[in-house]
Amino acid sequence: MSGHLAVIGLGPGDPRYLTPEAAAALAAAHALYGYGPYLDRVPVREGQSRHASDNREERARAEAALDRAALGGARVAVVSGGDPGVFAMAAAVCEAIETGPDIWRTLDVTIVPGITAMLAAAAQIGAPLGHDFCALSLSDNLKPWELIEQRLDAAASAGLVIALYNPVSLARPRQFAKAIERLQRHLPQSTPVIFGRAVGRPNEQVSVTTLEAAAATHADMSTLVIIGSRATRVIERPGRPPLVYTPRAIDRVRT
Amino acid sequence: MSGHLAVIGLGPGDPRYLTPEAAAALAAAHALYGYGPYLDRVPVREGQSRHASDNREERARAEAALDRAALGGARVAVVSGGDPGVFAMAAAVCEAIETGPDIWRTLDVTIVPGITAMLAAAAQIGAPLGHDFCALSLSDNLKPWELIEQRLDAAASAGLVIALYNPVSLARPRQFAKAIERLQRHLPQSTPVIFGRAVGRPNEQVSVTTLEAAAATHADMSTLVIIGSRATRVIERPGRPPLVYTPRAIDRVRT
Repeated sequence: MSGHLAVIGLGPGDPRYLTPEAAAALAAAHALYGYGPYLDRVPVREGQSRHASDNREERARAEAALDRAALGGARVAVVSGGDPGVFAMAAAVCEAIETGPDIWRTLDVTIVPGITAMLAAAAQIGAPLGHDFCALSLSDNLKPWELIEQRLDAAASAGLVIALYNPVSLARPRQFAKAIERLQRHLPQSTPVIFGRAVGRPNEQVSVTTLEAAAATHADMSTLVIIGSRATRVIERPGRPPLVYTPRAIDRVRT
Repeated sequence: MSGHLAVIGLGPGDPRYLTPEAAAALAAAHALYGYGPYLDRVPVREGQSRHASDNREERARAEAALDRAALGGARVAVVSGGDPGVFAMAAAVCEAIETGPDIWRTLDVTIVPGITAMLAAAAQIGAPLGHDFCALSLSDNLKPWELIEQRLDAAASAGLVIALYNPVSLARPRQFAKAIERLQRHLPQSTPVIFGRAVGRPNEQVSVTTLEAAAATHADMSTLVIIGSRATRVIERPGRPPLVYTPRAIDRVRT
């Protein structure tokens, strides 16, 4: 029997985001691999082994899971926060398969999508991703900072709303402020900026500010930031938080 | 009692993608509004009224739902395919609130995120959205074609993977081929292109081709297209469909 590997998106945290497909894939696994805090979200089930690893060990985790799936036809699950295909474990598993032993290419591999952080954060505040947008990772562990700046320039000047994943890291606390400074070359100071902290978790906090105020606003490793475009609008509401949205229609070219 | 409006993402089709939050919000509604085929996915529940409308009537549907929520404090649900915040109903509801009667700003509005088509299509084939990417709508009903071309240019030359929503419409069958021709200015003919048709539905079909062959490949209104970047890779597998993924790391600037 061929081994099976499922890469499973848990969504942003709360079980209310966990799809039935993901729940079924978790229940069917013999062995679970993942970053410790993500594994902790999965209820313990008798007969399943659990293999926690550190956040920075994605490649090693993928290889350990593939090895296990290849040996004896086990059903193995790699758990991922949000969607496994968005700055998460699915690419790490593919990288490992491409460069690993031939037997890994024979495995039955399933990717189970999940609600990624930008969708959950956007939903908390309205519809900021309501028209063309991009998702960029600010981590320069995996690409040069100059390339990140090129992509910020391209996205902002083309009028795309920008969802920023990994806005800061412990090693590079200044990345986020540098990115905001870069975006200020292209966008008005009044551009809406959304901070979604710990979205989908008990300490969730979603707030809206402006590009001018954003650089001084604290972002941490569990923050998802959405930078509006020139078209993005804020609706103030009496006694309720504002709604932020990007209209579906654009009448003319404004870059 | 204040009225309540929930804008609910059903995901790509199959109930396996419907989150518990979305299922609970559907169950709690007194009245459901939506495009007919989306409403048809929601099990009939006694005491709920259902209001189907055509695909092109998003603004009118939003206004009817807001009117209903404002009258008598009803719990109203607007159902949306995929995620309501991605080229879908959440922005239409926000537009209506911004320009509508003051009472609409007093309503309790909840957006319930869902698995959007690009995440489901990507998961079927590997991890093509594994690094920086954008989501663009090719519909020029709502923006000028020149702006679409500018955004295709910006995204492809900045090395972003591109998810194309609404690749064709009945009125503009040539849009998709024009977009591919535009992208050929920036990307090699061998760039992987993924066609996800009816993802999450019984007739689902996900295939991979090249940019060279893409223009002649049929896309329809239920197709989601993903255009790789120069970094996107295809892993051939014996006896299994290929895996397509975009690596997490980029060593140098390649545009």
